[in-house]
Amino acid sequence: MSANEFTVQQLLERVNTTRRAEGQGNERVRQITARIVADLFRTIDELDVNADEFWAATDWLSRLGASGQMGLITAGLGFDRLLDIRADEADRRAGRAEGTPRAIEGPLYIAGAPLSRYETRLDEGEPRGEVLVMEGRVLDEQGQPVAGALVDVWHANEQGRYSHFDPEQPPYALRRRIETDAQGRYRFRSFLPPGYAIPPGSPTAELFEALDRHGNRPAHIHFLIAAPGQRLLTTQVNLPGDTFIDDDFAFATRDGLVLTLEPGTPPQGYESLGVNAPFTRVRFDFKLQRALDEDESKPLARMARVKA
Amino acid sequence: MSANEFTVQQLLERVNTTRRAEGQGNERVRQITARIVADLFRTIDELDVNADEFWAATDWLSRLGASGQMGLITAGLGFDRLLDIRADEADRRAGRAEGTPRAIEGPLYIAGAPLSRYETRLDEGEPRGEVLVMEGRVLDEQGQPVAGALVDVWHANEQGRYSHFDPEQPPYALRRRIETDAQGRYRFRSFLPPGYAIPPGSPTAELFEALDRHGNRPAHIHFLIAAPGQRLLTTQVNLPGDTFIDDDFAFATRDGLVLTLEPGTPPQGYESLGVNAPFTRVRFDFKLQRALDEDESKPLARMARVKA
Repeated sequence: MSANEFTVQQLLERVNTTRRAEGQGNERVRQITARIVADLFRTIDELDVNADEFWAATDWLSRLGASGQMGLITAGLGFDRLLDIRADEADRRAGRAEGTPRAIEGPLYIAGAPLSRYETRLDEGEPRGEVLVMEGRVLDEQGQPVAGALVDVWHANEQGRYSHFDPEQPPYALRRRIETDAQGRYRFRSFLPPGYAIPPGSPTAELFEALDRHGNRPAHIHFLIAAPGQRLLTTQVNLPGDTFIDDDFAFATRDGLVLTLEPGTPPQGYESLGVNAPFTRVRFDFKLQRALDEDESKPLARMARVKA
Repeated sequence: MSANEFTVQQLLERVNTTRRAEGQGNERVRQITARIVADLFRTIDELDVNADEFWAATDWLSRLGASGQMGLITAGLGFDRLLDIRADEADRRAGRAEGTPRAIEGPLYIAGAPLSRYETRLDEGEPRGEVLVMEGRVLDEQGQPVAGALVDVWHANEQGRYSHFDPEQPPYALRRRIETDAQGRYRFRSFLPPGYAIPPGSPTAELFEALDRHGNRPAHIHFLIAAPGQRLLTTQVNLPGDTFIDDDFAFATRDGLVLTLEPGTPPQGYESLGVNAPFTRVRFDFKLQRALDEDESKPLARMARVKA
C-alpha cells in the first residue's frame, strides 16, 4: 500500500490512531472522539451520505454553534433528559434515597440572581398576569427541614422569553435566589408563566422544521436548589393543563412535578408579598438527597448557553 | 407506563418518531438525524459519558461553530478525505475514466479571484521567496487540450496564512483564476509556499492537543478546475520533501500529486512573468473527467469556511 492511498477502513484506522511521538493528550477524549468518528464514518457509508449533504450538515452545525443554541438542540434531541434518566438509574443501582425528581436545567440559567431570605417577588413589584404565589419547604432525605438552603428560581416572561437572552428585559428579570428560613421555608410571588417556543428562523427551528417537529415547551418554572451537605437538585415544575404538558419538545415533563393550583386562595398572610385579593397558590416541598461528596453539592460545569 | 417517565430506549424511540400531525418535513434529514442520535445515545451508554463530559463536549462544539473552524475539524478528522475516497469508489463502480486525482478543497477557498488569460502572477508583482513558475495544460479524458478552462489557484503566504482569513493580506492575495489558451495551457508565477498549521489557541488546536495530534499540513497549492462539459476537479499539488508530506493532519496527500521541482530553469521565455534569472519550474497537466450532467460541472454548495 502507498503511504497516501487507502481504503475507508485504512483511513479510519489512521484518523483514530495517529498521534505525536510525545504520547501526551487526554485518553478519554481520544476514546470518545474515536468512537464518534467511527460511527459517523459508518453512517456516511450505510446511508450513502453525499458531499452536498455532508457540507450542508456541517454548515448547519457551524451556524448552530455561532447562534448559541447548542443547548436547545441537545434538549430537543433528548440528550438532556437522557442524562437525567442515567442519573436516576445510577441512583437506583447505588440504592440511594429518592428525592424530588430531577428535571433538565435547560440552557437559560444565569447564576448570581438577587438573593432574599424566606420570601421575594420575581415580578419586580409590577403586577403582571395572574398572581401566583409558590411556597413550600426544602427537606432532607429524612424529611427534616433544611434551613439556609438556596432556592434559585427562574421562568419566562409573558412572551415566553428569558431575561439575559432577551434584550428587552432588565438583568435578572424573573430570576431570584431565596434562602430558606429556620423552618426550611421559601415563598415567592410571580405570575403564571406561559410556555416556551424555540426562536423562529433560528438554526434550531430549521432542524425542527425538517424533522417535522414543533418546538414548544409547556409552561414551567425552573429551580436549582443547593445546601451544604445536600446534593444539588436541578428541576422544574409544570403548570397543569398546558397543551404541551405531555408533548414537551425537550421531553422534560416528569411525573411528580406537575403543580396543583389553588385558585381563589384568600390573601390573609400574604400581605408582605403585596397580595390583597384572592390569588392562585401552589404548594411544593423539595426533597434533597444527601451529598456523597463535595462535588455533588456543586452546580455542573455547564457552559453551553442559548441566545434569544 | 406513564406518559412522561421512560427508559433510555423509550426516550430514544420518542425522540426519533415524534412528529407534528401535519406530516411535513424532510424524510432524509429525519433519517440521518435519527441515526446520529441513536449512535450518540449508544456511545453515551457504552462509554458511560457523564454530564460534565457531555456539557464540555457541547461547549467545545459551540465554540468551534462560533470560531468558523468546522472545516478544519472535518479535514483533521478525515471526513474530507473520506468523501474523496467515496467519490473514487463510485467512479470505479461506474467504470468512469480516471482523471487527475481529486484532493480535498479545504475550508479556505474564496470564489471570484481576479481572472487572466493564459498566465498571471500570484505574488502581485512583488518578488517573494523562491521564484516558482508552474505551467501545464488542462486535458480531457482523451488527452485533448481544453481551451477556455478556468484554473482557480490559491495558496498560503510566507507565514502559512490565507488571504481573506488573515486580516494582514489584501483581498485575493495569492488567489487567481487563469483561463487556458487555445492549446489548453496555463502558467503562473508565485513562490514556493510553506506548509499550514491550525491556529494556536483555537478550538481546533484544543481538540488536537487532547488527541495528541499535530495540526500541520505539508506545503501545497490548491486548485479548482472548471470547463463546460467537464467535471469540476478539486485538487491540490504538494511540494516534494516536506516533513509532513506523508503525515498531513488532513490526510490529503495523494500519489500522483507530488510535484517534481526543476530548480535552475533558465529564464528565457518567462520574461512576461518578470523572470530574468534561473528559477524553479514545475510542470503539471490536469486531466478532467467528462461531466455526466450539468451538476458535475458546478462547484459544491459548500458553505462551511474557516477563520484565521
